[in-house]
Amino acid sequence: MAAGRSRVVVVGGDAAGMAAASQALQQARQRQPRGRELEVVAFERGSATSYSACGIPYWVGGLVGSREGLIARSPEEHRRRGIDLRMGTEVVGVDLAARTVTWRRVGDQDDDGPREGSDGFDQLVIATGAVPRRPDAPGFDAGPEAGVHGVQTLDDGSALIADLESGRVRRVVVVGGGYIGLEVAEACVLRGLHVTVVQRGATPLGTVDDDMGALIAEAVRGEGVHLVTGEEVCGLELAPASEGGRVRAVHTAGGLELPCDLVVMGLGVAPSVALAREAGVPLGESGAIAVDVAQRTRAEGVWAAGDCTEVRHRVSGRGVHVPLGTHANKQGRVAGINLGGGYATFPGVVGTAITKVCRVEIGRTGLSTEEATDAGFQVVTVAVDSTTTAGYMPGAEPVRVKLVADERSGRLLGGQVVGRSGAGKRIDALAICVWNEMTVEEVLSLDLAYAPPFAPVWDPVLIAARKAAQAVESACRSDG
Amino acid sequence: MAAGRSRVVVVGGDAAGMAAASQALQQARQRQPRGRELEVVAFERGSATSYSACGIPYWVGGLVGSREGLIARSPEEHRRRGIDLRMGTEVVGVDLAARTVTWRRVGDQDDDGPREGSDGFDQLVIATGAVPRRPDAPGFDAGPEAGVHGVQTLDDGSALIADLESGRVRRVVVVGGGYIGLEVAEACVLRGLHVTVVQRGATPLGTVDDDMGALIAEAVRGEGVHLVTGEEVCGLELAPASEGGRVRAVHTAGGLELPCDLVVMGLGVAPSVALAREAGVPLGESGAIAVDVAQRTRAEGVWAAGDCTEVRHRVSGRGVHVPLGTHANKQGRVAGINLGGGYATFPGVVGTAITKVCRVEIGRTGLSTEEATDAGFQVVTVAVDSTTTAGYMPGAEPVRVKLVADERSGRLLGGQVVGRSGAGKRIDALAICVWNEMTVEEVLSLDLAYAPPFAPVWDPVLIAARKAAQAVESACRSDG
Repeated sequence: MAAGRSRVVVVGGDAAGMAAASQALQQARQRQPRGRELEVVAFERGSATSYSACGIPYWVGGLVGSREGLIARSPEEHRRRGIDLRMGTEVVGVDLAARTVTWRRVGDQDDDGPREGSDGFDQLVIATGAVPRRPDAPGFDAGPEAGVHGVQTLDDGSALIADLESGRVRRVVVVGGGYIGLEVAEACVLRGLHVTVVQRGATPLGTVDDDMGALIAEAVRGEGVHLVTGEEVCGLELAPASEGGRVRAVHTAGGLELPCDLVVMGLGVAPSVALAREAGVPLGESGAIAVDVAQRTRAEGVWAAGDCTEVRHRVSGRGVHVPLGTHANKQGRVAGINLGGGYATFPGVVGTAITKVCRVEIGRTGLSTEEATDAGFQVVTVAVDSTTTAGYMPGAEPVRVKLVADERSGRLLGGQVVGRSGAGKRIDALAICVWNEMTVEEVLSLDLAYAPPFAPVWDPVLIAARKAAQAVESACRSDG
Repeated sequence: MAAGRSRVVVVGGDAAGMAAASQALQQARQRQPRGRELEVVAFERGSATSYSACGIPYWVGGLVGSREGLIARSPEEHRRRGIDLRMGTEVVGVDLAARTVTWRRVGDQDDDGPREGSDGFDQLVIATGAVPRRPDAPGFDAGPEAGVHGVQTLDDGSALIADLESGRVRRVVVVGGGYIGLEVAEACVLRGLHVTVVQRGATPLGTVDDDMGALIAEAVRGEGVHLVTGEEVCGLELAPASEGGRVRAVHTAGGLELPCDLVVMGLGVAPSVALAREAGVPLGESGAIAVDVAQRTRAEGVWAAGDCTEVRHRVSGRGVHVPLGTHANKQGRVAGINLGGGYATFPGVVGTAITKVCRVEIGRTGLSTEEATDAGFQVVTVAVDSTTTAGYMPGAEPVRVKLVADERSGRLLGGQVVGRSGAGKRIDALAICVWNEMTVEEVLSLDLAYAPPFAPVWDPVLIAARKAAQAVESACRSDG
């Protein structure tokens, strides 16, 4: 390291890592000459930086034309901004006492550089992301060459598309009915394939209540997806190596055999914490890396951001793992600003999520009924059916809004919306109400935008709040 | 009045009045036998109750097929719920000391009942609504028979549509480029008419900043509307009575002559306060009826709700007149609950409004730059251009978000959005942030819903907040 310079090593070149890297440089430059000169080295195992993993299902489905469309900033752009970026290079060890990382090159390299080495750091950013969860059952450790795919990285997406376009795939089984699972299922339907989604829960998207999930199940089935609920997968059957070794069927504990030519892992992801754990960086209650509001880990001079970290849920107060690009970007920004000598915080999440499955939009925020009960709240719940515009307008679409409120205080704990075009993003209103710890009584008075093309005169969110306020009042009266 | 009974008289049978009437009855019934029995008499001058005045432009434009489509609840439905409803009957005087209203029947009546009379009350609800503002210039006092129309009531709408369909109208002049003015202009374009909008301000919708208004002007002109800005109307020219006496042209102070066959008043509305004022019910600083959070006026036993009342602006702290159906409904509900023995409040507004002009969606909330400056704030403003979905998705539409923040505290004072499909309702997020007095720094951390079909990974609202937070930080540094 040069004298007077401070070196930052970033492990992981997707949203969180590269946001941290660029913000750190930017902050440090703003603070020159008072600030210390910063050198930023970033390691990325794969072949792309700063891409939208959430966009992969839309690329698979053909809505997004190319892999490049999903890349927000290329390695070359990052290098032009002054980041020493090492692509195709995996960090395999961290020595916190010696302040070094050891790395090795992965895959084929077109240069004569060293295949492995080590670098020193003053400060370290861990942004190692997440890996797809796999069922703990025989066969599920197979890889893309056997037709078993994840959809976490651009390289995963490339492999999946190549396989889908090989001509040998007619039947797809998606394991898991979460956000990614449903999005990939729809993408495969768009490709004209026969698609089965198999999941353990009674309804898709375990993060919404079952009554709302039932609406989603109906929509998914309506688009031709074969949805198998309440079934745990127990094995993946591969053809013998002599016949190509590819997947033939998925078996369930309930005795179902789901024949297929390709399997997608849609069980969500687990934080990639092996490197951090081995280095002695403490993990949190969720199993992801514990960080404070500044994205500092509990190890001196080590920061972490993105899908490998734990976030604080502002309603339950718990440390949770919520792998989402939007959080990763914000956390990377916060880590970078603090690293570079500024100050910023990531004050936690309220568990907002949204997706579009076929023509149905689904949003959720805060705690579901089950989560709220688990967190010790005594709740009232209400659900209302309304429309996205004034009912008399030609474009009126149905929307159902469900609210979960604390029975004693009336505080809004969570909300869910399911409906057609124009329904989903209404969850933002509820997310901000939950964030601000508003009561349902306050929510019903909110000055939300009204005009016939945008809402009924009582916005669906307000109708739901009104009904929830009545339920809280009734509960209070009967308790009194 | 029957002994042991309390009589409520409601003046005005649209949203606010009928919401108050039904809530009062409902509350009183819930509280039986402890509560007093309530008798509710409601007077409505026109021929319809509880209708959507905001929907009239869409009826005029043919998007809503019938007048009935705009009626939420008919007189018969209200009567079935126990309200003694007197249609076609105008209250012409209130005697607060004697606790009586005097009324007369208006228009043709198909019964032999009395043409005028008086009724006693214990409590009074004033819900007299608003009347279109007219330019203080010769000729503008002409009525529908001369081709000069308002669009406040269903009866206005019927008259306007009959005139438009008479075959004698080719050229329409809309006076005023506010919400209603632009919506009616679009409706007339949909009918294939030549439409001119003439307005005093430099850009349409005076409640948004000029730079945002310029985008709206562009959209309006793009749809073929002839938009004349910066011109005050100074006269309305009528044909001689011998030639039908209809409007021929509108003249402006700048010397323009705008030939036309029909004129629509789109200058907004003034609160109908004559009855209240003459009765001695105090008005507020805005000229509308002053009420407290329970919708009580300053006169004993007199309540008011809807477009005739003043509301408190939660940011400026001022009493303002914001005639909107959504407020009218909420205020009527609050007045009714309180009248009926319950307790509810209307805690004010943040000035949220939304409209769709041609294919452009426009939302605003809080204070505009000018309003904030007038209210004594030292402001920073930022505007950002983004997209309604991830930029790489096929449905990505442009959206511009502008924020106004207090330079010293960073508090968000107002926001504006202009964009295509999916842009407008994003104003709700900003409205709730303004309501909760959040700083732009807090706003940028919000957990808003992200998935590629709904937002870029940094939602446009968050990008704007991030830029605003930088502007606040820069301002603080340069001050310090």
